Amino acid sequence: MSAFGVRQAEETIARAFAPWIVEMGLTPVAFDATGGDFILPENKALVHVGGVICGQATAAAADTCSVVALAALNGRFRVCTTVDLTTHFIRPLKPGDVEIRVEVLQNGRRMAYTRVEMKAKDADKVAVTATSAFAYLEE
Amino acid sequence: MSAFGVRQAEETIARAFAPWIVEMGLTPVAFDATGGDFILPENKALVHVGGVICGQATAAAADTCSVVALAALNGRFRVCTTVDLTTHFIRPLKPGDVEIRVEVLQNGRRMAYTRVEMKAKDADKVAVTATSAFAYLEE
Amino acid sequence: MSAFGVRQAEETIARAFAPWIVEMGLTPVAFDATGGDFILPENKALVHVGGVICGQATAAAADTCSVVALAALNGRFRVCTTVDLTTHFIRPLKPGDVEIRVEVLQNGRRMAYTRVEMKAKDADKVAVTATSAFAYLEE
Amino acid sequence: MSAFGVRQAEETIARAFAPWIVEMGLTPVAFDATGGDFILPENKALVHVGGVICGQATAAAADTCSVVALAALNGRFRVCTTVDLTTHFIRPLKPGDVEIRVEVLQNGRRMAYTRVEMKAKDADKVAVTATSAFAYLEE
Repeated sequence: MSAFGVRQAEETIARAFAPWIVEMGLTPVAFDATGGDFILPENKALVHVGGVICGQATAAAADTCSVVALAALNGRFRVCTTVDLTTHFIRPLKPGDVEIRVEVLQNGRRMAYTRVEMKAKDADKVAVTATSAFAYLEE
Repeated sequence: MSAFGVRQAEETIARAFAPWIVEMGLTPVAFDATGGDFILPENKALVHVGGVICGQATAAAADTCSVVALAALNGRFRVCTTVDLTTHFIRPLKPGDVEIRVEVLQNGRRMAYTRVEMKAKDADKVAVTATSAFAYLEE
Repeated sequence: MSAFGVRQAEETIARAFAPWIVEMGLTPVAFDATGGDFILPENKALVHVGGVICGQATAAAADTCSVVALAALNGRFRVCTTVDLTTHFIRPLKPGDVEIRVEVLQNGRRMAYTRVEMKAKDADKVAVTATSAFAYLEE
Repeated sequence: MSAFGVRQAEETIARAFAPWIVEMGLTPVAFDATGGDFILPENKALVHVGGVICGQATAAAADTCSVVALAALNGRFRVCTTVDLTTHFIRPLKPGDVEIRVEVLQNGRRMAYTRVEMKAKDADKVAVTATSAFAYLEE
């Protein structure tokens, strides 16, 4: 697809995102023609009083992984802004690794759209889904 | 309105939210009959490579402040899950304090709805807006 | 504000929207520097088996009124596409006139954002709220 | 799966939805264990001045088909309200039949979540996607 693989994704996360996001430890796993796979590793700092992974973390991961998946598809990081991020929290996520799949629904000249799905590791059912639009600020 | 004021809000943030959220330093300012005001204080850890406050932080703050504003309105923390969090990123937020206003649009027996608006300190124009639905898990 | 007033709004609705939308009978009431007011008039065809105005109608009205309010602010109809339309249905709307307020949160060169609030006529509380992003296809 | 099939879906559409929605002519095609398929048939009344199917129609269809797919999964129509409907308009839909797929992401005692995807007939790429939460008003 492109020369932008896991190593470039790791570098992009370290370089382009806020330290508070880097701290989450999002791990790129693989990219393909329509998106990418990530892991949000188990992390006690993301668990709230109810004993589940906080929705703020999964929403933040959805946005971050979307931007990285777009970079992979583009073969480079194109500066963009998130227009909207809509996250639905469908099932609780017990502490543990979270599997994240980003599907790029459109990647145009000016706009891109992604959908993100998250599941507990090895679970069947989606726990969190997000849909997002992005506006590219440069070609 | 209720005996739930700024001090109770600070205690709720410290106790009920994930450490990664507590780290943001969200500061409750005041509560009233329809919602509450907060500050997201200047914090370099929230700024990304583009030199602006990352959208993940403002989305996370929107969810967090909504839950605290509902607690203030209820006079206590009622356990709830976020059903959806929809955030629109309208203008960039330069590093600095962010003023956050939560308006509770409905606070029912089973469901609640909030709208959140964020502005750079002393700015006129809204930079981020979020709308969210919550489902109470207990009465 | 601009020469685009109620009459121009009526003409735009009749000319630019699909017949199925025109049929709703949306009525522009007034425009100002930050948005516009509309009425969705009582209409039995919009009421579902539960005896309330269907959410599909209020979502459709939110999008339509947003586009017209942007035209009023721009002084002309600039071709645009709706990027996303996020509607929250907060309270049921009994049959009767619905008051609609569109607030334009941003009106840029490439993108615009609106928020829409709907209430039953003379009611205090918001029944439906929508937030939307638009991408202009021409300057 | 259940005795609720295409015929029951047609009857539900005719009986439970507003006349303005019935007018769209949404056609149930098939149901399975995770959702349902529908067609929004070609209809000039849904086309706007830009020569494409209006977003208001696809958003309305997303909500309607979601409710019907939930009924099919439940084997009967359980009264519910739409909590939120978030629609992203990704590609224009030229006049013609639209293929609609509803995936039920969760169907709980109190809440349900759906995702809807729409494509032009025989097209590969998604044109419209919607995610929605529903609150059941009765068991």
